Amino acid sequence: MSAAQPQSPTKDRLLQSATKLFSEKGFEGVSVRQICKDADTSMNMIHHYFGSKEGLFDAILASFTDKVFATPLRVLDQDVQSKAEFVTRLEVFFEETLTALIEQRHLVHMMARHTIAPTAMASLMGNLVSYLATCQAKGYIRAGIDPSMISGFMMDRLANQVLYAAQIKRDTQFDLINDPDYRARWTRSNLELILYGMVSPDLTA
Amino acid sequence: MSAAQPQSPTKDRLLQSATKLFSEKGFEGVSVRQICKDADTSMNMIHHYFGSKEGLFDAILASFTDKVFATPLRVLDQDVQSKAEFVTRLEVFFEETLTALIEQRHLVHMMARHTIAPTAMASLMGNLVSYLATCQAKGYIRAGIDPSMISGFMMDRLANQVLYAAQIKRDTQFDLINDPDYRARWTRSNLELILYGMVSPDLTA
Repeated sequence: MSAAQPQSPTKDRLLQSATKLFSEKGFEGVSVRQICKDADTSMNMIHHYFGSKEGLFDAILASFTDKVFATPLRVLDQDVQSKAEFVTRLEVFFEETLTALIEQRHLVHMMARHTIAPTAMASLMGNLVSYLATCQAKGYIRAGIDPSMISGFMMDRLANQVLYAAQIKRDTQFDLINDPDYRARWTRSNLELILYGMVSPDLTA
Repeated sequence: MSAAQPQSPTKDRLLQSATKLFSEKGFEGVSVRQICKDADTSMNMIHHYFGSKEGLFDAILASFTDKVFATPLRVLDQDVQSKAEFVTRLEVFFEETLTALIEQRHLVHMMARHTIAPTAMASLMGNLVSYLATCQAKGYIRAGIDPSMISGFMMDRLANQVLYAAQIKRDTQFDLINDPDYRARWTRSNLELILYGMVSPDLTA
């Protein structure tokens, strides 16, 4: 992965304003004029930096690279030695992925609005599936469970929680973005569920 | 719940065209002119039936009532007598909710695009949480699991699968909408995971 290019403040402001506006109103609902006004710059700057509104949209998507998930990816990039280590790494992965998605939440909103599943997310899920398959081969995960189902379950849950954080806060007072206690509780409950399921082992018929 | 009003074909066509266009381009990205053209009707019909584009949007949302989830709601509306019955009812609920969401997939897309969590979905989740709490009190679900986490997990998974069905088909060939075998396999795998978790009971430290 190449290092980030130094960017002019104007270019940065355009990216930030456009991400916010696209996430609120959609690509079709935002004009070049609105973006430039929000970014406090002149109309020809989008043409100068991005060629067009389409180019600006693509530049925003391109910023959602594997770098966004550098920490969770690092957590999986280890040879796991015990089941306890597997569980701990999965917990850290879940927490760090949530943190990354919260940091990028305007972009996550923008992509959901346009039903775009970003490459970086697909890549993260691919790494998670490999990690789970390795741990399954070592006997830490039950045979017969499809690792891609676990990965899908985890990512759906994480992405939607970030996407609907505002509604959830309005409806329940729980504030995933700003309340670290709630975030920790939410993370623990979800991991408990995906690890052990809702049905107690001793109740299993 | 009141019975459905008889509707004129023109009104129906406007609702269908607008649902499709709003789901593809967003509210801001669609003009009254485009909707009327797609519905093959004259410009003043939106004013006549809905007052405005906003009124039309609200009418579409209002069509996503509890009726959409009549079958899954009925499945939960029973006094459960055994753990086996609890598991079976949960399976049928999961399948029937998926079917309802697939039938309403254009509306599901439209709502996701505008980050609207519909009342009918909140109501379905409320019913599911009550059902799970009752079953937990009877000992069918492990103590310490928060029923609202189970409900959230299940609904996130179902809604996203319908939302991203087209991408998933493109990327993996799996066709949730048209392939009943895949749909059945997907449903079984997800239920297995949420019921028993990924970690085998006999491996639990």
